[in-house]
Amino acid sequence: MPQTPHTEHHFTAGESVRDIVIGMSDGLTVPFALAAGLTGAVSSTGIIVTAGLAEIVAGSIAMGLGGYLAARSDADHYASERRREEREIVEKKEAEREEVAQVFRGYGLADEQIAPVLQALEARPQAWVDFMMRFELNLEEPRPQRAMASALTIAGAYVAGGLVPLAPYMMLRHDVHGALAASLALTLIALLVFGGVKGRFTGAHPLKSGFQTMLVGGLAAAAAFGLARLFGGA
Amino acid sequence: MPQTPHTEHHFTAGESVRDIVIGMSDGLTVPFALAAGLTGAVSSTGIIVTAGLAEIVAGSIAMGLGGYLAARSDADHYASERRREEREIVEKKEAEREEVAQVFRGYGLADEQIAPVLQALEARPQAWVDFMMRFELNLEEPRPQRAMASALTIAGAYVAGGLVPLAPYMMLRHDVHGALAASLALTLIALLVFGGVKGRFTGAHPLKSGFQTMLVGGLAAAAAFGLARLFGGA
Repeated sequence: MPQTPHTEHHFTAGESVRDIVIGMSDGLTVPFALAAGLTGAVSSTGIIVTAGLAEIVAGSIAMGLGGYLAARSDADHYASERRREEREIVEKKEAEREEVAQVFRGYGLADEQIAPVLQALEARPQAWVDFMMRFELNLEEPRPQRAMASALTIAGAYVAGGLVPLAPYMMLRHDVHGALAASLALTLIALLVFGGVKGRFTGAHPLKSGFQTMLVGGLAAAAAFGLARLFGGA
Repeated sequence: MPQTPHTEHHFTAGESVRDIVIGMSDGLTVPFALAAGLTGAVSSTGIIVTAGLAEIVAGSIAMGLGGYLAARSDADHYASERRREEREIVEKKEAEREEVAQVFRGYGLADEQIAPVLQALEARPQAWVDFMMRFELNLEEPRPQRAMASALTIAGAYVAGGLVPLAPYMMLRHDVHGALAASLALTLIALLVFGGVKGRFTGAHPLKSGFQTMLVGGLAAAAAFGLARLFGGA
């Protein structure tokens, strides 16, 4: 694939940062909300820790394997679309020429300005296929080792995030309400910091991003707490 | 944005289908694994149903709001990058001309073939910005109402998926092991069917996609069951 220059002016998150954000966003939120919710219904920290750990294991495997399969399926999709384009520029040459022309007409180019571009692409079938993959289908070639690295990063970030809200329940074994208070304080601070750091990578204002992230976690926990108290009492 | 023709030959999932897949993948997997995990540690269906419902509420809110904020942040990112490109084609005209040229050199075009394209883009600043957004930065303009629709679709799919594994525990209130068996059977079938349908949209073979999806859910549930039995006994 051709590289375009000076993209570093437009900073976007790298793939690993993106995977950490995906895993940690859910890891900090869902086990936190589950633990808070169960505190509204049961009085044993043992059950809450067990449920929390079961959730962390289930969530990290589901998200990690999900990430692995998504990356694998992106790679399969790219390969099959590429084979199709390789066939089409031979078998449906006229239609493919017309597609290239339409891309450029969309930017206001006249047919006599498009003709030399068509000529150059026709002389280089691989470059023509590259062009169609990027500009017609908007697909980029995935890196081969991506799937496994993505799976491990997402799962690890989920586990790291999920242990934050559970730690107080593990340490304050005989004081479930004290554990809830400590878990709330610790996790809301972690969400604020994580949201702020995330903002630096996504280009959002760190303070805005921090408070939004804290709000999502807090709302999920409050809703789970209310619902569990409702059903746990019944 | 210019439209390219005949993309319907290369079928890819629409945005709603994608949101349903995102929500239901996790909704069928995590509450299932949590319920199975807790069955390894506690003997009351009441606690399992309460924990499961708390998880569904927490997970659907976290994923739904997460989807909403992601869509909003995509829109902000697009707008800010667009403003930057609008400035750059005025203030750094030569650098931007060179970027367009490099895109085409990557496809093997000579400078005299590129010159008329540059000329056409320079005559139409908005088309030039469109071109840079798509071909340099690979960003597409997000639809404005996307954020809320995305949030509700993801959350709804999560709830629908999550109620499948919990239903047996709600109905077989006095037989926790019977409920586990029914939940396993029901959810594995649901994962197989869901994975198969998902395969039709992602282009994967339905049978392969079905078994992969079932495997992820099954592995997550088995790991959660094993871990909860280990810790629940302690």
